[in-house]
Amino acid sequence: MRENRRAFLRMAGGTLAGAGAATRAFAEGEGPLEVPSWTKEQGATAPGYGRPAPGEALARYPRLPPAFPGAVATVTPLQGLHGIITPNGLHYERHHAGIPAVDPDRHRLVVHGLVERPLVLTMDDLVRFPAVSRLHFLECSGNTPWLGARPDWTVQDSHGLMSCAEWTGVELATVLAEVGVKPGAAWILAEGADACAMSRSIPLEAALDGAILAYAQNGERLRPEQGYPLRLFLPGLEGNLSIKWLRRLKVGDQPFQTREETSKYTDLMPDGSARQFTFVMEAKSVITAPSGGQRLRAPGFHEIRGLAWTGRGKIAGVDVSTDGGASWRPASLEGPVRPRCFTRFRLPWRWEGGPARLLSRARDETGYVQPSRDALVSVRGTRSYYHNNAVFGWSVAQGGAVTHAA
Amino acid sequence: MRENRRAFLRMAGGTLAGAGAATRAFAEGEGPLEVPSWTKEQGATAPGYGRPAPGEALARYPRLPPAFPGAVATVTPLQGLHGIITPNGLHYERHHAGIPAVDPDRHRLVVHGLVERPLVLTMDDLVRFPAVSRLHFLECSGNTPWLGARPDWTVQDSHGLMSCAEWTGVELATVLAEVGVKPGAAWILAEGADACAMSRSIPLEAALDGAILAYAQNGERLRPEQGYPLRLFLPGLEGNLSIKWLRRLKVGDQPFQTREETSKYTDLMPDGSARQFTFVMEAKSVITAPSGGQRLRAPGFHEIRGLAWTGRGKIAGVDVSTDGGASWRPASLEGPVRPRCFTRFRLPWRWEGGPARLLSRARDETGYVQPSRDALVSVRGTRSYYHNNAVFGWSVAQGGAVTHAA
Repeated sequence: MRENRRAFLRMAGGTLAGAGAATRAFAEGEGPLEVPSWTKEQGATAPGYGRPAPGEALARYPRLPPAFPGAVATVTPLQGLHGIITPNGLHYERHHAGIPAVDPDRHRLVVHGLVERPLVLTMDDLVRFPAVSRLHFLECSGNTPWLGARPDWTVQDSHGLMSCAEWTGVELATVLAEVGVKPGAAWILAEGADACAMSRSIPLEAALDGAILAYAQNGERLRPEQGYPLRLFLPGLEGNLSIKWLRRLKVGDQPFQTREETSKYTDLMPDGSARQFTFVMEAKSVITAPSGGQRLRAPGFHEIRGLAWTGRGKIAGVDVSTDGGASWRPASLEGPVRPRCFTRFRLPWRWEGGPARLLSRARDETGYVQPSRDALVSVRGTRSYYHNNAVFGWSVAQGGAVTHAA
Repeated sequence: MRENRRAFLRMAGGTLAGAGAATRAFAEGEGPLEVPSWTKEQGATAPGYGRPAPGEALARYPRLPPAFPGAVATVTPLQGLHGIITPNGLHYERHHAGIPAVDPDRHRLVVHGLVERPLVLTMDDLVRFPAVSRLHFLECSGNTPWLGARPDWTVQDSHGLMSCAEWTGVELATVLAEVGVKPGAAWILAEGADACAMSRSIPLEAALDGAILAYAQNGERLRPEQGYPLRLFLPGLEGNLSIKWLRRLKVGDQPFQTREETSKYTDLMPDGSARQFTFVMEAKSVITAPSGGQRLRAPGFHEIRGLAWTGRGKIAGVDVSTDGGASWRPASLEGPVRPRCFTRFRLPWRWEGGPARLLSRARDETGYVQPSRDALVSVRGTRSYYHNNAVFGWSVAQGGAVTHAA
C-alpha cells in the first residue's frame, strides 16, 4: 500500500489535492467554518440494535424476477461496500421455497447412515461442542451469468451473489468423529428443513476439509435467511451445497443424486454432456470501484478497488488493466490474505478524462489464473449457466460514465 | 484447536454425547422425525436490509443512567457473541452530547495549524484517497469499573464498552503527507462536530502509527452513533481519542489541554496526582462463556470461550484457571492472531457439577502480562476510574449459576 501510495504521489506530482475536485486550501485568517445546525443542539440516542445512517440506502434485491414464489436470489451491493466483511443485513441470499420460520428449541439435526452411533442433536448440544470461527466467502454457482450481459449492469447485478463473513460453529469433522463414520463411507447427504427439503450430496473429503455446522455469522446468531438456527458451511465450494436450516446428515457410500444435482446445478457442455458435482469455486476477481452505474466526477487520481477470491486457498496476486488488456499492472493486496476468503485489492490510477477499459485478473496459490471469457468459452461453450469465473470488464466513457463491457 | 479437541475426547471417554444433555441416539427403524409446520409451507422472503432472527434479542443498553441527557455509554452483549466481529448494530457507543445528524454533503474536515498547505476536505475528497481496511478492537478507557463490582454483572455490564470491527478509510499519515507537517509539530487536536465539539490531543507518533480517518465499518458506511460520516480511529488507544463526527485536525507543538484531558480521562493516583495522556489499552482478557447470568445446565464438557486483546500489538497467549488461580492451563487462540484486534480463545473443560472459579490472564507479544487486581491496585490505588485491565473472575456455584467474583 505504501509503495502504491508513493508511486501515486510521484504520478500526481506531490499532491492528491491537485487532482481532487472540491478540496480547497484553508487560510487561517478566513474565520470559522460554518457551524451547522447539528453542532448547535444535543443529538439523539442510539437504538438498542442500530441501523444504517438514514441517507445510506444499500439494500439487497432479487437479481431476477422469481421463477415461482419462494425461489428468490437477492444480491449484495458490492459497489457500496468497503474492505472484505459483508454486514449480515446485506449478505446475499438464495432460497428455493421461501425462508422457514424455524423454532430453534424444536429444531433437531439427525446424523445417521453409515455411522456407528446415529444421533439426534439439539441446538444446545451443538453449541456445547468445541467451536471455530473463520472468515470465508460464499458464492452462488450462478453468480455472473454467461449470457445476457447488459451494459447497465452494476456489480451488484453481475457479481452480487457472493458475500464474505465470519462464520462460527462446530467443525463437521468433530460431529463425524462423534458419530463414528463406518468403512466405505464416501458421501454425505445434507438436507434442509425448508419446504423443498433442499438436499445435496457432499463428498466426505470436502466434509473433512474445514466444513462447519454454523450457527453464527459475524458474531451473532444466523439470520433467518441464512439458515437460522443451523446451516452447513462448506468453504470454497458453490453456495447451494451449504445447506441452510440443516436438519439431516446421512452418510453413504455414493452420491444421493438429489433433484438439485440432476435437474439443476450441472454444467451443460458443448457436446451435450453435463458436468456434475462441480464444487470448487475457482479463482475470480472483480473491480467494485469504479464499476457499472458509477461516474468518475473529475480527471486525476482514482484508486481502483476490487475483490478477489478462490475456493482453492489463498489469492496470490491480482493484475489490473486500464486499457482493455493491452497492459497489466499488479494491484496491492490488503493483508493478511486469508484462505477461501475475499481479498481486497487496490491500484492507484490517474484517469486522464478519456475512454478506458478496466479489467482484473486473479491468480491463486495453486498457480491457477482467472481465464479470459474466450478461453473459458473455448472449453465450456455457451450452453452452461454456472461457474463463470472469466475476467470481467468495465468501460469508462469520455465524461466518466462506467458501464459493463465484456 | 485440534489438539484441544483430542485432549477433550480423551477426557470425555470418546464421546461428547455422553456428556451432553438432550443428545440422544437415533435408531434407523424409529421412523421419520417430526415434520414441523415450517417444512410444510412456503416461507417468507428476506427484506432488502436484513434483521436478526426474531427470537434473538441481543441489544445494547446504557451501562449507567446518563449523568445528563446526551451523555450515554451503551454496551455490547459480549455474552451472546461468537468469533471476533461485532455486528455494527451492536457495537458499543459513547457520546457526550447526543448523536448529531450530520449531512455528509455539507460535512467538511479542516486540516490546519503547523502544516504547509492547510486544506478543507469533503467526504468525496476523502473517499478518493488511497484506502486501507483493518480489523481492530475499540475499548473505552472506562470499560470495567474498578469499584462497585456487582455479583449480578453480566459480561455486557463489566466489559461491554468494547467491540471489534473492520474499519476502512484513509490513513491519517496519507492526509498529513498531503498537507505537509511543519518542523516542530508534535501533537494534533482532533475535534468532533457534535454539540460538545468533543476534542482530544493526539501525539504525532500515534497519528503516524496506523491511525485511520474512517468512513466505513464492517463494509458499510459508518452508523450515525459511530461518527457518520467520518471518525478518527486510533488502533489500540483508549476509545475517546477516536473522535467521532470528525471536523477538524489542528497540528501543534504541544498538547491542547482540552476539557476531556484535564477535567476528565485522567487517572487519579494514590498520591493525589493525575496520570494524564494514558493512551494505550494494555493487554486484557475476559471469559464470555460461561459468564455472569448464564447457567451451566449439565455437568460434563463445556468449552470455556473468551476474548483477549492488547493495544501493543498481538496477543501471545491466554492462560485460564478453573480453580481461582491455583492452577492455569493455556487456552488455544483462534488464528490468524491480528495486531490490536480481538483474539478469541477457547479451552475444553469438564465441569463436575461443583463450585468453580474461572479466570483468564492474557499476555502480549511485548511480554506484558495482564495483572491481578491486587497488583494493579498496589500501583494505582483505588481512586482511579479508568484503565482497569486486571484479571477478572466468574464463580460457578453448585448447580451451575454463574456470577461475578473479583
